[in-house]
Formats: sequence, structure tokens, C-alpha cells
Amino acid sequence: MISPDLSDYPEINPPARVLLGPGPSMVHPRVLRAMAAPVLGHLDPAFLSIMDRIQQLLRYVFQTENSLTLPVSGTGSAAMETAVANMVEPGDPVLVCVNGYFGGRIAEMSRRYGGDVQTIDRPWGEVFGAEEVRDALARRPARIVAIVHAETSTGALQPLDEIAQVVRERGGILIVDAVTSLGGVPVRVDDVGIDVCYSGSQKCLGCPPGAGPITLGSRAIDKLEQRKSPGTNWYLDLTLLAKYWGHERAYHHTASSSLNYALYEGLRLVVEEGLENRWARHCSNAELLWRGLAKLDLVPHVPEARRLPMLTTVRIPEGVDEVRIRQELLRRYNIEIAGGLGELQGKVWRIGLMGYSSRPENVLLLLAALEQLLG
Amino acid sequence: MISPDLSDYPEINPPARVLLGPGPSMVHPRVLRAMAAPVLGHLDPAFLSIMDRIQQLLRYVFQTENSLTLPVSGTGSAAMETAVANMVEPGDPVLVCVNGYFGGRIAEMSRRYGGDVQTIDRPWGEVFGAEEVRDALARRPARIVAIVHAETSTGALQPLDEIAQVVRERGGILIVDAVTSLGGVPVRVDDVGIDVCYSGSQKCLGCPPGAGPITLGSRAIDKLEQRKSPGTNWYLDLTLLAKYWGHERAYHHTASSSLNYALYEGLRLVVEEGLENRWARHCSNAELLWRGLAKLDLVPHVPEARRLPMLTTVRIPEGVDEVRIRQELLRRYNIEIAGGLGELQGKVWRIGLMGYSSRPENVLLLLAALEQLLG
Repeated sequence: MISPDLSDYPEINPPARVLLGPGPSMVHPRVLRAMAAPVLGHLDPAFLSIMDRIQQLLRYVFQTENSLTLPVSGTGSAAMETAVANMVEPGDPVLVCVNGYFGGRIAEMSRRYGGDVQTIDRPWGEVFGAEEVRDALARRPARIVAIVHAETSTGALQPLDEIAQVVRERGGILIVDAVTSLGGVPVRVDDVGIDVCYSGSQKCLGCPPGAGPITLGSRAIDKLEQRKSPGTNWYLDLTLLAKYWGHERAYHHTASSSLNYALYEGLRLVVEEGLENRWARHCSNAELLWRGLAKLDLVPHVPEARRLPMLTTVRIPEGVDEVRIRQELLRRYNIEIAGGLGELQGKVWRIGLMGYSSRPENVLLLLAALEQLLG
Repeated sequence: MISPDLSDYPEINPPARVLLGPGPSMVHPRVLRAMAAPVLGHLDPAFLSIMDRIQQLLRYVFQTENSLTLPVSGTGSAAMETAVANMVEPGDPVLVCVNGYFGGRIAEMSRRYGGDVQTIDRPWGEVFGAEEVRDALARRPARIVAIVHAETSTGALQPLDEIAQVVRERGGILIVDAVTSLGGVPVRVDDVGIDVCYSGSQKCLGCPPGAGPITLGSRAIDKLEQRKSPGTNWYLDLTLLAKYWGHERAYHHTASSSLNYALYEGLRLVVEEGLENRWARHCSNAELLWRGLAKLDLVPHVPEARRLPMLTTVRIPEGVDEVRIRQELLRRYNIEIAGGLGELQGKVWRIGLMGYSSRPENVLLLLAALEQLLG
């Protein structure tokens, strides 16, 4: 047996990046420190009590009293799949609103789970009005309607109130993707009337990737309980997860204490700051960025009225090698921003100010660096 | 909006448990420290190079040259589901060898993915002979055969060499669950001829839960490529994961740098120790435990010839309140062991000596504590 040469595998020494892309965002030192705490078994009473508190804090950030509120052991994509896998039964008519990459992903997942998927589409960067959803449901009723709150691929913020009302009037289940919005802008699950809402740990909650918060209201739970057969997905089966996170504490999988310590500490930081203050911080730092971009003659892709505070898409100026600029930002200044995704590839940069990344010093640094490189 | 009272959410302060259950095992301080390194984006060149090295080190612990070798972003259960979701197509005849809880779980997952599942069964604690598999395949051929190498619910070690040969002669794909065995006993994927092998980070690799290593040989990849349609599971779709972990680096989900730092450091510790030394350590500490148990008149459930070194099931002595003993171990001495699962619930304790938990000092402490409580 040939053993690897240890000298080919040095200790990790990752550069300290300023993470201003679409996520992961930077992680507060207290959150990193929390992960170094001793590992607990997944059924240890000390861990169960941390789980309870995580669920309570998630209810706060989701603004919900939903009992079934928990983090799945996976990233935001796993949380998306949790929503789809548990709600979509084979043959269910599903309406997905697609105005960016992640709407498209929901549609793909829904098809995989046997949904009879119809999409309505909008150009990337625009958002849907309630009348479009109403018309689509009038043309073809759907049991499930899915929409993305903050499209990370376009930078647009989708208003939800009226759409939620339309879906409810029509008796549908509304799934909202709040991966990028949760903790950065208001996500009022109960007030708005969202049936299923999910997110990720690595955006505005400021934790490492690996935990996917999700919450289900009573109508969604009814649908779950009335399923004709268990869903295909076992790892993300909410009926099993609910038994582990709920009173029964029935073993399902080995939840990671380390990731949950991180999530707990990240949520404590949200409470310390206060949700409203956190939303206001994301706005004020975004405005600082937008004013600075204007001075550099850089034009956001999305009009300010529907622009995300935590993710700004910026049009690439004529004649600029967008890849080179990103490489230089990383190489010279340790700053990560992202290129466009899908339709917007090569057309925009994506600048994220999420969670602990959303700080004035990061905005000033990025603007100064862009000025150097574009000047 | 009512904000939670921060005093209800104190800083985490988990007790330093001696983790001697079926996993998670204890995590080496260097692994915990690695997680505190700055987070990197999932497409950062610095992270991509860590990913490459993780794949090389996983090939070493799996003893394989399989190109498609990677950790999925989930626990060992997610790795199991990755194997099933990618290999089992609707209607595929599947043979699952069930002699414990986890064999049963593979069968359940295979049914969910539409497999035409047949099981062969053995009492919990026994193992399968090659002739039983040969007979089952003669009665009904199967495209996929699944078996558990180290049944964490029973403590039995399943010999694989002859079974692998039988499956190969019959043209089947062999899936081996090495969640508990990898890093603790030899798992020679290429020599044995295993087509799909998966594991978890939190057992004998000594990392926190959250990463699920998996490797696929060429016959498994052929099956994957010949699928009639994409699998239902998107998050664990190996055709998409291979594009992210392979040369294309196509975005799929946001891999967690923190968890991968931990996995990398855990794998470095394996290299430092050497796989053979690590296997020998697991054996010698197990023997120390077994000798001590004998002195306490405690009887292992599985005969020594097929007993796992990293997980010993111990029969509960007549008249002993097994739950109380476990509670006292935890309360008085911070030692976690586990009760039985499924058929063996209330009948055995499960004592794990996995990864960094497998140390003589832990064995001596447990024996002394058991002597106190049972004496």
C-alpha cells in the first residue's frame, strides 16, 4: 500500500478573503469559535436543548409560530429540495415563477419529484405581479406555487404579500425561497401567509454553509400528512425529521453538533443586533455601495425600487474584461465578488453584502479596489 | 415584533463528553481548529485546491484509484442515499442483505427510489456467506446488491471478498456501506472489487458529522451514464456533483469550506498515522476493552471472530436497568455509550471506539466507570 507523502498535504492556510459574492458570506469570529466546542452526540440531552433553542430562534428570524421549524443537515439547496420533495407528489400541478436561476432550479426539482410543472417567466431582473400569478392559476389551477423572494442570480426582490393572498384564495400551497433574503430583509412568514419557507445558513445569517432552515405552516403540514405515499427522498423527509427535532427524538441521521453550534451562535448575533436593526444595516450598507458605484459610473442591473440590499448585480462596462477584474480583486486585494449566472453570465458582476460581510469597511474597500482596477 | 430575550439563549458551553457511542466520535483538537479557519467561497481557487487534495486522500482511505471519489455535503445517511439514488432506477431488481438496522434502511431507500427490492435476512449480529448471496441471485438476478460492511446496530463485521466476486460474476453492481468501517478496518475498494462504497466523516475518520465520502468504480459509472432519466434526487445527483468536483467546476451547491477543512485535517491525521497503524490501533484498543469487559462478566453479543473493533455490542446483564446505567455514565463521568437499536433495543449497549475516541485512556475510564456502576 502506497501512503501519500504528507509533504504534498500541508496544513490548510486559507487566505482571509473579503467575501462579497453571492454567498458564502463572511463568518463572525464568534461563530467560527463556536464550532470549536466539543462535539456532542446527536441524542445527548445537552445537544437536544441546543436544538430546541435553535428552533425557537429560527421562528424569530422567520417571524413565525410554526412548530415545524428546523434546519436540515445540508445547504440552502438541500432546504429547497426539502420543500419540493415533501410538498410535490407525483402528478401534482405545480406553478413555478421563474425570473432567474433559482426559480429554474425549483422547476427542475419539482419535475424530478413528478410534479406537473408549469412556469411563468419574466426577464432576469424583473419581478412578478400578483395578477400574473392570478392569471396563471385561472388558466390552470395548481396545488403548489413556488417563488423566489431574493433572486441571487439577478438581484431582484420579489414582493410577496399580494401573491400570497392570491395563492391562498386559490387554495394552493405557497413555497417561498428565502435563501438569500432571510436575516437581510423582512421575511414575515405568518403575516404574509407563506406555507413553506426555506433558507440557507451562509448568506444573511452569517454562518458557514451546511444548515438549511425550513418552516412549514399548518396547511403545508396537512398536505404532508395527506400524502398518498412517503416521498422519494429519505434524508430530507420532514415526517422523519419532525420526529427527531420534535418530542419523540427518534433517531434519523447524525445531526452535526458543530454546524448547529455555528447556527446557534449566528442566530444569537441576530438577536443581539435585533432583526429590524439588521435589516436597516443591510439597507444602509447597500446604499453606501450604490452611491459609490454611481461615482464609478457603474450601473446596477435592477432599478432601485426592487433591488436587493444584500446582492447587487452591476452591469459590466463596455470593453472591460470582467473575469480579469474579478481575478485581480482576488489576487491583489483578497476580495471575492462573483460573475453572472445563466442568462446574465458575462453581463454582470454580483456583489454581495450579506450578514457579517455587510459592513461599511468592506464597501469602502471594494469601491477603492474597483476604482484602482477600472481607473 | 417581540424579540427573544437574550438571557434565554446563553453562549453554548457543551460538556466535554467522552464519546464512546456509535458515532459521532471525538474530534481531534487539530480538526476542530481547522474549522475555525477563514471561510472560502465554493469556487475560490484556494478552496478548489483543497477539494483536489481531499479527493486524493479519500482515494487513499478507500484504497482506490476511482476518479469519482468525493464527499457529499451531508452525513453518512446522505452518502447512503447518494449511492441508492444514483444507482437504483425505477424497476431495477435490487438485492439487499439485511442483518441489522442499516441494511433495513438501504432497503427502504431503494424502495423509495422505485427499486424492485428483495432482501435476504440474517439474525442481528450474524453475517452473510457468499453462498447465500449466490443462491439469492440464482433465484432472482439483481442489477444491484447492497450490503453493510460494519453494522453499527449489531457490531458484526461482514466479510466482503467472496460476496464481491459472486456479485461481479453475476454482472451486478455491489454497493457497500462503509460508514462505520472506513478508517478503522481495511476497506479495499479496488482489491475487493466494490463498485460503490460510501462512508461518513464522524466515525473512524474522526471528523464532525456533515461530510459523506463516496467512491464509484467504472461499472457503477457506466450504470450512471446509462440511466434512462436523471434520478429524482437533485442535491445528491452524482452527475452534477462530478461536474463540480471534477474539471468543469460547474456550480451545483455551496460546498462548506469549514466542513471540508475538518475533513482534510482528519484525513491528514490518517496519513500521519498510516492506515495500517490506524487499523492496528482500533484492534488493540478493542482487545483492551474486550478483556476488561470479560473481567466485569459482561458478554459481547457478537463472537470475536466477526466482532467489529470499533463498535462492540454488550449484552445487558440480567436485572440491570440499562437506561439508568447510561444516564449515570453521562451524568457522573461525561461518558456517552448507546443503547441498542431496533431488534436489540433494551438488549445491548453499544460501545464505540472510533477514530480519536479509540484510545487506551478512554477504554480504562469506561471500564472503571462501569465497574463503579455495576459493582
